[in-house]
Amino acid sequence: MENIYMREALTLAKKALSMGEVPVGAVIVRKSDKKIIGKGYNRRETEKNPLSHAETEAILQASKTIGDWRLDGCAMYVTLEPCLMCAGAIINSRLDEVYFGAFDKRAGAVCSQKESFAGENITYYAGIMEDECSAVLKDFFDKIRR
Amino acid sequence: MENIYMREALTLAKKALSMGEVPVGAVIVRKSDKKIIGKGYNRRETEKNPLSHAETEAILQASKTIGDWRLDGCAMYVTLEPCLMCAGAIINSRLDEVYFGAFDKRAGAVCSQKESFAGENITYYAGIMEDECSAVLKDFFDKIRR
Repeated sequence: MENIYMREALTLAKKALSMGEVPVGAVIVRKSDKKIIGKGYNRRETEKNPLSHAETEAILQASKTIGDWRLDGCAMYVTLEPCLMCAGAIINSRLDEVYFGAFDKRAGAVCSQKESFAGENITYYAGIMEDECSAVLKDFFDKIRR
Repeated sequence: MENIYMREALTLAKKALSMGEVPVGAVIVRKSDKKIIGKGYNRRETEKNPLSHAETEAILQASKTIGDWRLDGCAMYVTLEPCLMCAGAIINSRLDEVYFGAFDKRAGAVCSQKESFAGENITYYAGIMEDECSAVLKDFFDKIRR
């Protein structure tokens, strides 16, 4: 099913791809006015920074936008299932909702490898535009292998 | 038992305290030459940034120092047991060893609430200078409650 926020996250993932980064993108939406208050994409290699994932970049920007580290009342849309670090960052920033696209069988910390949100006040929705989110990642890794 | 790196982490925790932040400090040591290549302390309120924990700040600085996001061959000393986000950041940055001081019964993701390093190539040592690391936190929370 088409989703405008996941579409935007995919556009960001493709920006990462154009820089030679693993293509993952994320946006944070304030639910009260449906505005995107934070955007991010994976820039680990470019920034030489292990913390620079799509989710953390989006959280950083959203916090700057609203001038508060508390992001309750906001939802994150991200093209790939968050890793442990990002799941923890989502908990720490008090986001209410997470929508992700592709599953990460190897490092996914929402439902694939770990269930980080169990017992937390966070609702998640998995597999949003999964085919498109997976395809961009598959293309990237296919090219690396060749 | 006294440890010079944990002593430095404690000095950083006290810097956080002086800024009204939850007092947690961390350093990253390159094991080959025993040099401290990254320092950090909790600055969440000051920076209005939910990612700004002692561990992530130290990882960010260490990555900048060596110009690489891969911190293998390095050890982290941190005054408080890492949370889920920071445990994930430690995994993502490929740190080999983690030494922590105080246990975090509520949010500790190394051994208290979760065992994030299980199955990972990370050795951890808990309770290094525990009494001193706990005391600075206890003082902070006692003052808040008063």
